[in-house]
Amino acid sequence: MSGIFITFEGIDGSGKSTQSRLLAGRLEAKGHTVRLTREPGGSPGAEDIRRLLVEGEPGRWSAETEILLFTAARRDHLERTIQPALENDEIVISDRFADSTRVYQGATRGALRGIVDDLHARMIGREPDLTLIIDMDPDAALARGLARGSGEDRFEEFGIDFQRKLRAGFLRLAEDFPDRARVIDGTRGATEVGADIARVVDQFMAAR
Amino acid sequence: MSGIFITFEGIDGSGKSTQSRLLAGRLEAKGHTVRLTREPGGSPGAEDIRRLLVEGEPGRWSAETEILLFTAARRDHLERTIQPALENDEIVISDRFADSTRVYQGATRGALRGIVDDLHARMIGREPDLTLIIDMDPDAALARGLARGSGEDRFEEFGIDFQRKLRAGFLRLAEDFPDRARVIDGTRGATEVGADIARVVDQFMAAR
Repeated sequence: MSGIFITFEGIDGSGKSTQSRLLAGRLEAKGHTVRLTREPGGSPGAEDIRRLLVEGEPGRWSAETEILLFTAARRDHLERTIQPALENDEIVISDRFADSTRVYQGATRGALRGIVDDLHARMIGREPDLTLIIDMDPDAALARGLARGSGEDRFEEFGIDFQRKLRAGFLRLAEDFPDRARVIDGTRGATEVGADIARVVDQFMAAR
Repeated sequence: MSGIFITFEGIDGSGKSTQSRLLAGRLEAKGHTVRLTREPGGSPGAEDIRRLLVEGEPGRWSAETEILLFTAARRDHLERTIQPALENDEIVISDRFADSTRVYQGATRGALRGIVDDLHARMIGREPDLTLIIDMDPDAALARGLARGSGEDRFEEFGIDFQRKLRAGFLRLAEDFPDRARVIDGTRGATEVGADIARVVDQFMAAR
């Protein structure tokens, strides 16, 4: 595979979706073919699984069942969307990928990181080439996230303490995967954050 | 847990559902509390996952994604239906359980049995106390299964060669799990098959 696989990670409301689109537009303007996608979802089957994950009561699934559903959706997303695009030399930009599961399910809901890592190694395997972690103050991010009114608020409703744990989880992730992860300060305006990201991506592509 | 967990296995059309109900009725008549359930499904969440598995085109999911979805549904079924009933001293009778995944996905769709066994060990663990494998000629079973017109025919439509492989897989399963698996000749009338099953179950319960 000779395409490039870039992921955005961070807490809800940190600006991942906006920055994903900005980066996709920038790379397309430079002549690249870009596949903009997201998790959970990103392929027809994975979008069906996404509906099971984001709708319904917070206690609808146990943490273990949720990890299995996320992994099923990711496997479908990888097979049907990501791998074909990479094989076609495209740049894949995904709003969330496996790191979100590591942080949300693994770091915050008991000692489940081992299960997350086992399932990833066995059923997914692939890591992104570059991961942009947009870091910001959870109070500001939560206000942005709730303001969206997406209805997909299973994670958002856990409150500010949960968001603080997530932020810490994403920062630890950057330490765990120093080769591919870059932390971006997301507290500034979208244009400034986007300029930072453009610089990081340009450096990454120049170094390949 | 002091309840008893009994499963029925076999190819489509072998009479599992009929025999599950017959056995449930017999045990209830003897004063036992029986929880009759099925897979995929058996709990509200698992039934939602079931719809993803049984509807749509045969190629809707890869074998790997399918195994993850079956395991997610089974985990939910185990947590929400089977374990609570067993803890309440009930007899749980399930029309299919993990053995179906072992045979369908593991034995017939490539070298995936290792993945099936790993996921089972990691995410499910529990085996039935007694498994009744209803064995019959695939031609007769297929005719019965297709005659049902359930619309859930993703497996049924694979044809007679596939059903023959499944039959062989279920018989191998009985050899792999001699402590809990009993093969029942399903080619006779429902009453005779039911009498056989009643005898096996009575012996099993007397020996506990």
